[in-house]
Amino acid sequence: MMTKFSLFIPTRFIFGAGELRQLSKIKLPGKRALIVISSGGSMRKHGYVDAVKEQLWSAGVACEVFDKVLPNPIRKHVMEGAKMCRESQCDFVIGLGGGSSIDTAKAIAVMACNEGDLWDYIPSGSGKGQPFDHALPIVAIPTTAGTGTEIDPWAVITHEDLQEKVSFGFEQTIPQIAIVDPVMMLSLPPKLTAYQGFDAFFHAAEGYINRTCHTPISDLYALEAIRLLYKYLPVVVADGSDVHARCKVAWASSLAGMVETTSRTTGQHALANAMSGFYPKLPHGAALIALSQTYFKTFKNDSMKRYMKMAEKMTMQKAARPSDFLDALAIMQRECNVDKIKLSEWGITPADFSRFTECAIATGGTKFDYDPRFLNKEELIDIYYQAYR
Amino acid sequence: MMTKFSLFIPTRFIFGAGELRQLSKIKLPGKRALIVISSGGSMRKHGYVDAVKEQLWSAGVACEVFDKVLPNPIRKHVMEGAKMCRESQCDFVIGLGGGSSIDTAKAIAVMACNEGDLWDYIPSGSGKGQPFDHALPIVAIPTTAGTGTEIDPWAVITHEDLQEKVSFGFEQTIPQIAIVDPVMMLSLPPKLTAYQGFDAFFHAAEGYINRTCHTPISDLYALEAIRLLYKYLPVVVADGSDVHARCKVAWASSLAGMVETTSRTTGQHALANAMSGFYPKLPHGAALIALSQTYFKTFKNDSMKRYMKMAEKMTMQKAARPSDFLDALAIMQRECNVDKIKLSEWGITPADFSRFTECAIATGGTKFDYDPRFLNKEELIDIYYQAYR
Repeated sequence: MMTKFSLFIPTRFIFGAGELRQLSKIKLPGKRALIVISSGGSMRKHGYVDAVKEQLWSAGVACEVFDKVLPNPIRKHVMEGAKMCRESQCDFVIGLGGGSSIDTAKAIAVMACNEGDLWDYIPSGSGKGQPFDHALPIVAIPTTAGTGTEIDPWAVITHEDLQEKVSFGFEQTIPQIAIVDPVMMLSLPPKLTAYQGFDAFFHAAEGYINRTCHTPISDLYALEAIRLLYKYLPVVVADGSDVHARCKVAWASSLAGMVETTSRTTGQHALANAMSGFYPKLPHGAALIALSQTYFKTFKNDSMKRYMKMAEKMTMQKAARPSDFLDALAIMQRECNVDKIKLSEWGITPADFSRFTECAIATGGTKFDYDPRFLNKEELIDIYYQAYR
Repeated sequence: MMTKFSLFIPTRFIFGAGELRQLSKIKLPGKRALIVISSGGSMRKHGYVDAVKEQLWSAGVACEVFDKVLPNPIRKHVMEGAKMCRESQCDFVIGLGGGSSIDTAKAIAVMACNEGDLWDYIPSGSGKGQPFDHALPIVAIPTTAGTGTEIDPWAVITHEDLQEKVSFGFEQTIPQIAIVDPVMMLSLPPKLTAYQGFDAFFHAAEGYINRTCHTPISDLYALEAIRLLYKYLPVVVADGSDVHARCKVAWASSLAGMVETTSRTTGQHALANAMSGFYPKLPHGAALIALSQTYFKTFKNDSMKRYMKMAEKMTMQKAARPSDFLDALAIMQRECNVDKIKLSEWGITPADFSRFTECAIATGGTKFDYDPRFLNKEELIDIYYQAYR
C-alpha cells in the first residue's frame, strides 16, 4: 500500500540569476524589515546589504540591520535581534547570507512576537517546548548553496551558556518568501562550495534512505537533487564563476531543503553535529563528508533498492549492487577534492568518540530512529572509529 | 542559462487511503463551512457528505450544504452559493466531488467576499477583470482523479446567459487545504476513470512541452505524473477496486495539478474546451483523447528531446525518436480502452471545425502561444480534420 503522506511548503520561492531584483516587485509582508547578517563583513563587502536595501527602498520598505551573527549562531544574539526588532518596530525579518544568518532570522522572528527566552519554545534538549502561535514573516536570501534553510522550517542555534546546540523548526519558521539568486554565490571559494554542496547532497540522500519519513514527494525531490549535485558540484568546485552550474547546484540545494521539509535527515547528521559541537571549527559539510563512506556502507544491505536508485541517478547507468552508490559517492568526493578529509586535522582523536556518541544520542536521538536500521551505542561509536584515518 | 522561475504551492496537501479522517484533526480555517456538491446525488449516495459532516462535527465546525452544481458548472449557481454562504455566515468553503464542485467552491469563495457579479472579476472573455483582495479559504476534497483543481488555482465556469465557458484562477483560489483520499474514488466506473486519468496525463504532458512556462520544478512533477499514469491508469481501468493503483493514479493527478500551478496547459486544452463548449455532453477527457495523437504528432519535430524523455518515462526504455512518445501514448490508450473514440459519436461533424477553432482562439488564445510551435488558424482547423474519424 502506498504511504499516507502530506505536503506543505508554503514558501513563495523565486529562483534565478539576477532575481534579487524581484524583492522590490513582489508584495512584501510589511513596511519595515530587520535584515539579519553575519558579523564577518562579507555581506557588506560584496555589496549584498546595499543591494537588498536598494530593493527595499524602491519598494517603500524601511529597514534596520542586525549584524552580529556568528558562524555558529547563539541564543544571545537571537534575543538581541528580537529586542532590536521590537524596538524598531520591524514587521518582518530578512535573513541574508549563509545558514547561520537565516537560522538566526527565523529564531528572531519567533522571539520578536513571544515573551521570555528562546529556550522556552525549543522542543528538544533542555528547552521547555512551550507552544506559540505567531512569528514575524521571514524572507530568506541565501548566499550559499547547502543548508536548504530558505525553504525548510529548521534552524540550528547554540545556547552559549549551556553549550547546547539544538536544531528546531516550526511551521511558523518556514520562510514566507525565498529569493535564491545564484549570482550572489559566485564568490564562494572552492572548499566552502564543496562542503556546502555535500551538506545539500546528504540532506537529499539521508531523506531518501530515511525509513520512517520518506514519501513519494520527498523521494522525487531527493533523487533530482542527488542527480544535479553529482553532475554539477564538481563543475562548480573547479570553476566557481560558472553561472550555469552555480544555478544547478543552488536549485539542487533548495530541492534538498524541500526534502528536509517533507522527509528528515538521519543519524549521519546527528553524528556530524555532535563533532562540530565539540570542535566548532570543523565545518558541518566536512564532518558529513568524513563520516559518509562509513555511514552509508553500514546500511548498504538494509536499503539496497534505494542505494541502487541513487547510484543510477548519479551515474546514469543501471546499478548492479548497492555499493555502486558508495563508488559513485567516492568518485564525486574525489572530483570535488574532498576525498582526503582527516578528522585529525581538526584535533579530533579516538578519545572523543564516546562523548561524541553520547552527545549525538542526547541531542539528535530521533534521527537514529530514521536510519535504515537502528544502531546501538557501540555500533555508533564504531562508525566514528571506522571513519577516522 | 537555466531559466528563472518561481514556485508557490501553499496548499496543505494530505494524501492517503482513509485520510479523510484528517479533516477533523487539522486546524480548519473557520467555524462554519459551506459544503459544495453536485446536484447528481452521488455524494450523498456514497455517504461522502455524511462522512465530511461527521468530521466537521467532531472538529466543532458547523456546516451548510449547497447541492446544485451541474457537470458544467454555471455562474448562476456560483452567485446562489455565495449568497447562501454570506447569509449563513460561513467562513470557509469545502468543494467535495469532481472538478465542477471544487471549481464552483473556488468561485463561491471569491464571490462570498466581493460585491457584484463573478464576471466582474473574470480576467478573460467578456469578464471585467476587476482586482480583488480576499476570498474565503477553500478546502478541496476530490472524489475523482483528473482535474488537479485541488492543488491548482484554476476553475472553469460557464456564463449561462452568454454561453461563455471560461477558465480563470487567482492566488486566492489555490485551496488552502486539500485532502485526497483515494478510497473515495473506488466507485468511479472504468470509462470515467480513463477519461479523467487522461485529463491528468495531458495536464502533465502539455505542461512539459509548454515552450514558455515549463520550469525545472514543473518538469519534475510532469515526468513523474506521466510515468505513474502510464503504469497505473490501465490497472485502475481494468480493476477500479485496486486501492494501490487508485492511490498511484490519484497522486499522479495531484502532481499534474502541481504542473498546472507551475506551468500551463497548451493548445490541446483550448481545442478540446471549444468542442465541449458546443457539445456539452462530450466529456473533457474524451475530447482530449480524440485530439491527442494528431495534436502531439504536429509538434513531434519541435520538441524532440522532450517527446523522447516522456517516452522513456513511460516505456522505461531508451527512446530512439520523438514518435516513440506517440507509440507509447497509443499503447496506453489501447490498454485503457479509449483508443476508438470517435468525435462523430457526440454528433460532431466537419462543419463544426471552423467555429470550434474560432472559439478556441477567442477563449484560450494564450494557450496557443505555449505550443512548441505557433499554429495559424488553418493549421488548427487541420488538427480537428485529422483527428476526425
